[in-house]
Amino acid sequence: MFKAIINADVFKDAIEAVSTLVDEAKFRINADGISARAVDPANVAMVAFDLNAKAFESYEATEGEIGVDLARLMDILGMASKDDRIELSLNEETRKLEIRTGGLAYTLSLLDPSSIRKEPKVPNLELPAKIVLNGADMKRAVKAAEKVSDHMALGVAGKTFYVEAEGDLDKVRLDIPESNLISIQASSDVRSLFSLDYLNDLAKSLGKAESVSIDLGSDYPVKFNFNIAGGNGSVTYLLAPRIESD
Amino acid sequence: MFKAIINADVFKDAIEAVSTLVDEAKFRINADGISARAVDPANVAMVAFDLNAKAFESYEATEGEIGVDLARLMDILGMASKDDRIELSLNEETRKLEIRTGGLAYTLSLLDPSSIRKEPKVPNLELPAKIVLNGADMKRAVKAAEKVSDHMALGVAGKTFYVEAEGDLDKVRLDIPESNLISIQASSDVRSLFSLDYLNDLAKSLGKAESVSIDLGSDYPVKFNFNIAGGNGSVTYLLAPRIESD
Amino acid sequence: MFKAIINADVFKDAIEAVSTLVDEAKFRINADGISARAVDPANVAMVAFDLNAKAFESYEATEGEIGVDLARLMDILGMASKDDRIELSLNEETRKLEIRTGGLAYTLSLLDPSSIRKEPKVPNLELPAKIVLNGADMKRAVKAAEKVSDHMALGVAGKTFYVEAEGDLDKVRLDIPESNLISIQASSDVRSLFSLDYLNDLAKSLGKAESVSIDLGSDYPVKFNFNIAGGNGSVTYLLAPRIESD
Repeated sequence: MFKAIINADVFKDAIEAVSTLVDEAKFRINADGISARAVDPANVAMVAFDLNAKAFESYEATEGEIGVDLARLMDILGMASKDDRIELSLNEETRKLEIRTGGLAYTLSLLDPSSIRKEPKVPNLELPAKIVLNGADMKRAVKAAEKVSDHMALGVAGKTFYVEAEGDLDKVRLDIPESNLISIQASSDVRSLFSLDYLNDLAKSLGKAESVSIDLGSDYPVKFNFNIAGGNGSVTYLLAPRIESD
Repeated sequence: MFKAIINADVFKDAIEAVSTLVDEAKFRINADGISARAVDPANVAMVAFDLNAKAFESYEATEGEIGVDLARLMDILGMASKDDRIELSLNEETRKLEIRTGGLAYTLSLLDPSSIRKEPKVPNLELPAKIVLNGADMKRAVKAAEKVSDHMALGVAGKTFYVEAEGDLDKVRLDIPESNLISIQASSDVRSLFSLDYLNDLAKSLGKAESVSIDLGSDYPVKFNFNIAGGNGSVTYLLAPRIESD
Repeated sequence: MFKAIINADVFKDAIEAVSTLVDEAKFRINADGISARAVDPANVAMVAFDLNAKAFESYEATEGEIGVDLARLMDILGMASKDDRIELSLNEETRKLEIRTGGLAYTLSLLDPSSIRKEPKVPNLELPAKIVLNGADMKRAVKAAEKVSDHMALGVAGKTFYVEAEGDLDKVRLDIPESNLISIQASSDVRSLFSLDYLNDLAKSLGKAESVSIDLGSDYPVKFNFNIAGGNGSVTYLLAPRIESD
């Protein structure tokens, strides 16, 4: 059983954090909330998504799981206005999700959860540097880097977080000193290189977060973490590094 | 002879109600105003357009008819700002329409009226249900239905007007009870299915009308009627049904 | 040596006036400011660009020249917000231009000036008519003409400046009488025809100028001149005429 009501904007932002990476996902539902773990088809990026029952205006659920075509769901959510309420209700018999908003009733066919790619095990990384910054700053860095290259380094030098992208001809670098970060802790200088294709996808959701924490190592995956739904939920992205060739 | 002045926005909205359905139209002009009857190339939808002389700031005309390339006319009207005045004047000798707005003078070549598709006879339908609602509600229903299917049912059940669209997987339904309609009268429950391709075209103009009246039957054409030019004109659309296959 | 700081919007508007016509340009730098002369690949249009040192917040330069890929430069400037400051600094050794704005540091590879098309000699034209008008009016005329044709005549009849475009079917004409011009002087009536492809490119920058002066003859090149950077710079375009075939 699953029956819940939530603000349209909160729900759209939450689902978008997953849909930016994968087309379909298996959501686990229980009395505490809904969650998903998914990895992109190329095994480069992973998302861990948790939306607490408190994020909802009303929430009733027993344990279960549903397979969702995220593009179709986002399409439907796109019809709702900013302050609309979204009513969700699972029809167990037909295996369809009913979505009501502003008088409209959508019936969304669910996917067979067993047909969806297996949920990844999220590795527990211990990384030497942790940076916390405003998500909009991260998004701006990604947009700037895209102008010159298709990959981008994230690094820490002393107490400065930097991003750097180098194309065949041009180069862009953004240094964010400790004074412009929310916080920075680093037991050593670190630097890893990542694909801008992926970072650009993640930047959509990262850019909306007031505070994004970044765990970084040298030639190691990076971990981004931020809250959604006003703190009643969280999203974690893990992104594998690319080999720096010079 | 034809010489008239009209507000740019009023004229754009009026002409758009016809241009959404046909590329060219024959307009009949007389002392009372201008009118057009046109049917789309596939004979699925029909428009009856009447713009009263009172819709114009000034209006002088003797009886005549002109053939107009509506895409070219809309292109020209698109150059005018919202509150501009449009001056229209027919040059009988050259068979060109002069259009002046904000200092710009356009000379639009007219089409030979005899080259334009014959005007249809608008059938007089007696349909069992009549719904009057805000045009924006109708447009919203069409946009929602498009997400899941390429056709949409309009129906009345009791005192509720509904639209319903069913795709291979998903379904959307909008129920509008009497309390959210301007009025509803139905001697019986009705339901007909229509092409969303056409409804989407019509929705552009329907969506701007404060009040749209819908005459509906079962597996019968639907009739939409609404005022333009602040009540000094009207547009009627007739749309043929599609066969419901289940 | 070249080291300068300038408002982002002022610099973007200035560079755009050149980039609309050519992909790469050679800029001459000296203590008084920077300048460029360029002609488009088809030898139809020419730009003379001068940006005075006073347009900059700070400016230090010795004589030199740099070759710039304008598309890449505009791309980078596009990242800056309206009121950002742009810091420019030439690295003489690496032949790269460092561009800093809002914490971001771009390193732009310069082009070998000798690889760039030779600077044109700007001819000294004595033309019988001079019109000064608001740039937005010129832009509006170009946009209107594009609806019907791919070339446009500019002319003077008495004390009226006019533009006229004639397509196969339709025609558009804009008469601007002396009262709606800033000024007009003409020793004779004139008229020349120009390509709308080019005029449309030039209109981007012309449209932002409060005052554009137009020097016009009969079947002669037209000269547009306007100020940039609040009077601390100027742009001149020369555009060759097309032959009027009727």
